[in-house]
Amino acid sequence: MKLSRKNLDQRLNHLYDVIIVGGGMGGLSAAIYLQRYRLSCLVIEKGKGRSFWMQDVRNFLGQDPHTPGRDVLNQGQDHFLSLGGDHLRGFVESVEETEDDTFAVNVKVGKQDVTGVTFRSKYLIAASGVIDNLPQLDDMQNVFDYAGYNLHVCMICDGWEMADLKCGLFVNTENAINTAFVLNWFTPYITVFTHGLCEVGAEMRGKLKEYGFPLVETPIARFLGEKHTMTGVELADGSQIELETGLVSMGSQYHNGYLKGLDLTWKGENLVTDSMCRTSHDRIFAVGDLKEGINQVSIAVADGTLAATAIWREIRRASPPRRWQENIVEPIGAVL
Amino acid sequence: MKLSRKNLDQRLNHLYDVIIVGGGMGGLSAAIYLQRYRLSCLVIEKGKGRSFWMQDVRNFLGQDPHTPGRDVLNQGQDHFLSLGGDHLRGFVESVEETEDDTFAVNVKVGKQDVTGVTFRSKYLIAASGVIDNLPQLDDMQNVFDYAGYNLHVCMICDGWEMADLKCGLFVNTENAINTAFVLNWFTPYITVFTHGLCEVGAEMRGKLKEYGFPLVETPIARFLGEKHTMTGVELADGSQIELETGLVSMGSQYHNGYLKGLDLTWKGENLVTDSMCRTSHDRIFAVGDLKEGINQVSIAVADGTLAATAIWREIRRASPPRRWQENIVEPIGAVL
Repeated sequence: MKLSRKNLDQRLNHLYDVIIVGGGMGGLSAAIYLQRYRLSCLVIEKGKGRSFWMQDVRNFLGQDPHTPGRDVLNQGQDHFLSLGGDHLRGFVESVEETEDDTFAVNVKVGKQDVTGVTFRSKYLIAASGVIDNLPQLDDMQNVFDYAGYNLHVCMICDGWEMADLKCGLFVNTENAINTAFVLNWFTPYITVFTHGLCEVGAEMRGKLKEYGFPLVETPIARFLGEKHTMTGVELADGSQIELETGLVSMGSQYHNGYLKGLDLTWKGENLVTDSMCRTSHDRIFAVGDLKEGINQVSIAVADGTLAATAIWREIRRASPPRRWQENIVEPIGAVL
Repeated sequence: MKLSRKNLDQRLNHLYDVIIVGGGMGGLSAAIYLQRYRLSCLVIEKGKGRSFWMQDVRNFLGQDPHTPGRDVLNQGQDHFLSLGGDHLRGFVESVEETEDDTFAVNVKVGKQDVTGVTFRSKYLIAASGVIDNLPQLDDMQNVFDYAGYNLHVCMICDGWEMADLKCGLFVNTENAINTAFVLNWFTPYITVFTHGLCEVGAEMRGKLKEYGFPLVETPIARFLGEKHTMTGVELADGSQIELETGLVSMGSQYHNGYLKGLDLTWKGENLVTDSMCRTSHDRIFAVGDLKEGINQVSIAVADGTLAATAIWREIRRASPPRRWQENIVEPIGAVL
């Protein structure tokens, strides 16, 4: 059921089989599998994750390529609730391992008048993902007007849409400029914008010149365009540059702070996992963008399948076997 | 475009980047990714694969749990064609490696009046999957009336639907009877049917007795029920046994004959692959049920993402880089 401040008391003494932190594609996939494996499961999500912002999920089999990410999320959440799962809107602050080999998951619920509560589980799935950094302008609404439309954040997802268009590549480090030399598979008409956020060395300048990709270091004042179609940028000096599309490559925020008190193996900000999405901790799994690998909806959804299946197998094997208890009327032809 | 005997001549001299054998969930996912990576791709499928028979795809995020498998397949095929991919209904007989490091894929097209044609590609994705063995009765229509409805073939997919119901487990080997000791997680009311296909040793008989699971060795005459709801079986001796659901665990046919002439690493009938679904051959990938792992739609779809992405990376890195060829009017603020 949907938990809120009003009814969450009912679950504070419940030991869940699994708590999933994050209600995006990976978390919901795991949650649906877990409920169908007849395990008890709580999804805690803060809302507005990466896939919530996708205007079109373009490469996920079975979805019309104009399906908004939030439609898939809503469908998944309803499906999970219909299977008897619990769902809470809240922010996970920390996770502690307790002496009886369970997890205490500390959650803040509410925006004003915040309540702190603790839920308990045998297993934990970290599905809290990442969110893309965007250019920080004075008027952020101007950025949100285009981000996820024709100002993209994922080349694998939207390279096709950028094909052979005049494309702005928005970076915040010199290293991120290297994205241009992959993006040019889709379009060679690339202008690189640093927004004044990084120095660019002579070698990189030379490489950009060799490829004919202009480098713009003047900060951006605002994106130009209308109706969610970005048509260029205006710089701080008032000049304008025409564009037909854009790709933001400014790194991501990882929602992994709550895990930092646990003994886990990291590769940068990503959790290292095995082929079943298990982290270096036996009872903690990671799915989707938080783990190493390709950040794609299809991968996160499969991760959910893997983690849920591994957990089910373990809980099942550790449980007493179920026998046919009643006296059986032996069917004709049956040999016991 | 849709290829058929009428127009396939147009493609016989084309060297595809990738030919995908199999148009199921994994093959179509790979195909959509590959076209979106701007690669040229041909899907060859014989039709009526495993997911075609699924009446309800119940655990694939974003789909209503009553979505038939064929709806997802039709959506995926239309999506692929809309991206400019080629699709052919045909049966792949064999694949040969040619001296110039390409593949010759030999296909039979048509049912009567069969035409043999050969297509060429740089890479191959084996996505031809498996099909479940079903009990062979005199009247197979009687089996098809229930298979995929409440006579299931996949415990992970449909265990939830069998929960605490009287369930027939249909096996063809003694080893397959062990499925009962996993299935009892979902329901303990299991009757095992061998259909007279295998001997059952004393140890297994003892274990079944301990669990209270009746063993029926008399051959099945027919399934009982109506409107795709199986309600029991009638045995060859005329006796009837009431059931509420069933699980067939009789192994699968692997559609992998066309690969047997190539030097690949197998584990049983499954292809061994790395984390990107690459087989032991550099330019052959395997996705979905044909490779080792869990047979689930979500996994096959992610496999398609992985294989397509690995192939794209390789082709891209081996291709000449695209530069902005025209003379650039240097934008104000830009430093080349």
